[in-house]
Amino acid sequence: MSISTKRICLDADMGESFGVYNHGNDAALVPLVTSANIACGMHAGDPTVMARTVELAIAQGACIGAHPGFNDIWGFGRRQMAMSPKDIEYLVTYQIGALQAIAGAMGAVVEYVKPHGALNSMAHEDAVIASAIARGIRAADRNLIFVANCLSEMVTSGQDQGLRVIHEAYCDRQYLPNGCLMPRTMKNAVITDPGIAVERTFLMLERQQLEACDGTKLATPIETFCIHGDESSALPIAKAIRKRCENNNIPTATIADMARVSPRP
Amino acid sequence: MSISTKRICLDADMGESFGVYNHGNDAALVPLVTSANIACGMHAGDPTVMARTVELAIAQGACIGAHPGFNDIWGFGRRQMAMSPKDIEYLVTYQIGALQAIAGAMGAVVEYVKPHGALNSMAHEDAVIASAIARGIRAADRNLIFVANCLSEMVTSGQDQGLRVIHEAYCDRQYLPNGCLMPRTMKNAVITDPGIAVERTFLMLERQQLEACDGTKLATPIETFCIHGDESSALPIAKAIRKRCENNNIPTATIADMARVSPRP
Amino acid sequence: MSISTKRICLDADMGESFGVYNHGNDAALVPLVTSANIACGMHAGDPTVMARTVELAIAQGACIGAHPGFNDIWGFGRRQMAMSPKDIEYLVTYQIGALQAIAGAMGAVVEYVKPHGALNSMAHEDAVIASAIARGIRAADRNLIFVANCLSEMVTSGQDQGLRVIHEAYCDRQYLPNGCLMPRTMKNAVITDPGIAVERTFLMLERQQLEACDGTKLATPIETFCIHGDESSALPIAKAIRKRCENNNIPTATIADMARVSPRP
Amino acid sequence: MSISTKRICLDADMGESFGVYNHGNDAALVPLVTSANIACGMHAGDPTVMARTVELAIAQGACIGAHPGFNDIWGFGRRQMAMSPKDIEYLVTYQIGALQAIAGAMGAVVEYVKPHGALNSMAHEDAVIASAIARGIRAADRNLIFVANCLSEMVTSGQDQGLRVIHEAYCDRQYLPNGCLMPRTMKNAVITDPGIAVERTFLMLERQQLEACDGTKLATPIETFCIHGDESSALPIAKAIRKRCENNNIPTATIADMARVSPRP
Repeated sequence: MSISTKRICLDADMGESFGVYNHGNDAALVPLVTSANIACGMHAGDPTVMARTVELAIAQGACIGAHPGFNDIWGFGRRQMAMSPKDIEYLVTYQIGALQAIAGAMGAVVEYVKPHGALNSMAHEDAVIASAIARGIRAADRNLIFVANCLSEMVTSGQDQGLRVIHEAYCDRQYLPNGCLMPRTMKNAVITDPGIAVERTFLMLERQQLEACDGTKLATPIETFCIHGDESSALPIAKAIRKRCENNNIPTATIADMARVSPRP
Repeated sequence: MSISTKRICLDADMGESFGVYNHGNDAALVPLVTSANIACGMHAGDPTVMARTVELAIAQGACIGAHPGFNDIWGFGRRQMAMSPKDIEYLVTYQIGALQAIAGAMGAVVEYVKPHGALNSMAHEDAVIASAIARGIRAADRNLIFVANCLSEMVTSGQDQGLRVIHEAYCDRQYLPNGCLMPRTMKNAVITDPGIAVERTFLMLERQQLEACDGTKLATPIETFCIHGDESSALPIAKAIRKRCENNNIPTATIADMARVSPRP
Repeated sequence: MSISTKRICLDADMGESFGVYNHGNDAALVPLVTSANIACGMHAGDPTVMARTVELAIAQGACIGAHPGFNDIWGFGRRQMAMSPKDIEYLVTYQIGALQAIAGAMGAVVEYVKPHGALNSMAHEDAVIASAIARGIRAADRNLIFVANCLSEMVTSGQDQGLRVIHEAYCDRQYLPNGCLMPRTMKNAVITDPGIAVERTFLMLERQQLEACDGTKLATPIETFCIHGDESSALPIAKAIRKRCENNNIPTATIADMARVSPRP
Repeated sequence: MSISTKRICLDADMGESFGVYNHGNDAALVPLVTSANIACGMHAGDPTVMARTVELAIAQGACIGAHPGFNDIWGFGRRQMAMSPKDIEYLVTYQIGALQAIAGAMGAVVEYVKPHGALNSMAHEDAVIASAIARGIRAADRNLIFVANCLSEMVTSGQDQGLRVIHEAYCDRQYLPNGCLMPRTMKNAVITDPGIAVERTFLMLERQQLEACDGTKLATPIETFCIHGDESSALPIAKAIRKRCENNNIPTATIADMARVSPRP
């Protein structure tokens, strides 16, 4: 068994509340994952929510990541926007810096960056956008880890910019045969059955391959697994994964842990 | 002649464009001042404008400061908002961090923080708000300099938080007898005659006192002078001040220079 | 028994969701009230949420009102903002018009306007703001009913503008001795015990007077009662009031019903 | 000579200032055109700017149109956004209603609707978006005129919804061979030479055909000509067109005038 299958890394999107609006169930979810992708005020989150979420992550020993998205709270960053590469680059740097300052105020460090929503899905296939994101990350801090979808342009762009790249798969999402996430607008795109999600997750971990909705097998490193915090199935899935880990003595690891054994390009 | 009158420090608000909207005349103004208060995307500025403004400041050797404001682009941060101290604290930290990352990407450092507009005027008299701002600055970086209105609650709050405080007066604004800026809604609040502005500025520098609209003299350290970049009179005033400096061999200094001789509390 | 005590009018704030963010429990609450104060996209709501809420109101026979607020989604319109009277006037007209068009698309009519949050509380005591709101309402349509806090400047300003004014009291809020709502930041400002809320409501209805937190009695017409839809106690309180109505054969009325018997100034 | 070539209709985008930010030169341009496309607060404009622009249009006898766009002030509505058809429909209705109320307050009527920027260019080729816009217009008022790009999906969608459609060409923009506007990101997309713009405009008017950048001729009704108010060339182009009209006794007409002779589908 390879190093990566000796342990499991779980991340989840967090801090996506906004003002009076609550979203997700961070307090329950953060103890179940190892790494917290924290929204940075553009697609969700506000400075006070960010601070509260950093506190929560610290209290539970979670590794802190920035989760930058398009500036579109109405659309929760899930609507594609045709933004120029320069604007994307600085939008990413801006959001990382904002979270760095808030995390730093509490003695914590932002370890990694994972793009959100439509920014993430556009960068999956578009090398120009992926590269703008990678430059935006490197500009903020070249030691930041780039959490990139398996088989995406982000992997290449991140490596081209000299960033450590961690490959991410989804516990609760179907894949298309080309390795893209099935869009949420398609039926069955989100997996809500914990049993199925757990089975898929450990198969992906063991085999280091994605299985697309049509059965296509896609070999790829897989270093972290994302659970969508805003789905009602997030908690049952996370609990079922942790249960399986305990039963099988599979230790957990943070994204920073995973990156330590992943040599820099 | 005291140390502070041997040289003059001039700062101006910059980077207040937004998307297609241009504001101010940064390219012409930045060579005339020594320190650039750069908007951070909440009352004005967007990430790309911030990057462009940092580049401009670097190219002209200006010292870089963060200019955080209320999140109100429609009102340009000039409308008072009843925000909780916690929200203000994190709003300030957030904006500083965003600019730090963008400046850092170009090898520059944010040296100081000056609050903008209504946030600044509210903090002048309100110790709770002033203290929230000071905490927000210290949270981002305890080495940041707090540029505070002379005779304001910000001076005390900044010192209480262990920050180096630089006292700021305005070249182009009238003062009320209590040391507050005359509100823009009052007639003659903004001084647009370069001759008058220059005269006032050098008197303030020499005497280290403000003169209010009714003639009241208010003694205070004065370490930097602000010129409002968005007034059409900004350029003529700045040029007239620089001319006077050249004629009298008065050297200029940045806010960072001024802080070096200002012992930390 | 006076006309106003022969029947009861109940209104609630609705349509305060935004994008993915849900708020309140409109579907359960709308059948229990008679009149729906629908957010207009500035403090909450988006065009699609507005349309969905209008549909819901139509389906349940609720009378439709516009609920304009400050443009501050982060603060949910609850933060005071120092906006100019002109800006407030047009902000109000803008929001009413937006809802009128969306309601009109479904064959419904906006019958009344009730200001939201900080805009409402500022206008309670400030005649300049109250008058700006009243002008903004009249500008949109002089037949609109102005739902105004009892004993507030809005009552006078609305009447001065020739609008029909309906006096509103709160089922679930404490009053200060001067007739203002106790701010939410004060302890016990919100009444969550349905028994107490019901008792207060029917006493107010019968006696046509408010009772402040210190026992002060304030005589005033009271024509409609607001239940805050976003409090968890909203449903129990609304149900308890409806129960009492049924037990005592007290009919309900909409705000439009109430205005029909309220002669125009 | 056909009816449409006996007179000329000129429209321009207006009211695109925002808060302290000025944009365009409405006061100079409005007397030169006949119809004012007024921004509605989503891509530009705020309620007070809208009111000021309506006043200006009334004073100069210009016909008033709503100019709805994506909710993206940073991008000035020029960035494509992947919004659902329902969201687009209500977004359009919302903005029209807002302007109707503000115009109505001054005794004016919104006569037509012209989509802005990326919303317009997406709808040019995408029937789903074009249809959402047409439904949004009809929902607000079925008597509104839909000003649609020549040869676009908007023409068909508008007619399908029973709206009167006015075909619009651009004085100052190059066309692609398929009848789409050349994107602004392409070189020479915007025509700034008044002589060339005037020549093109009157050729289009006379021949009722577009000429694409490669010489392709595209026959189409052309009923109104747009001048981009935010280009520095707008004024010289508008003046040159008016000069030619005077010299040749070509009367001008508003969009409402043009629609009167254009039978409803």
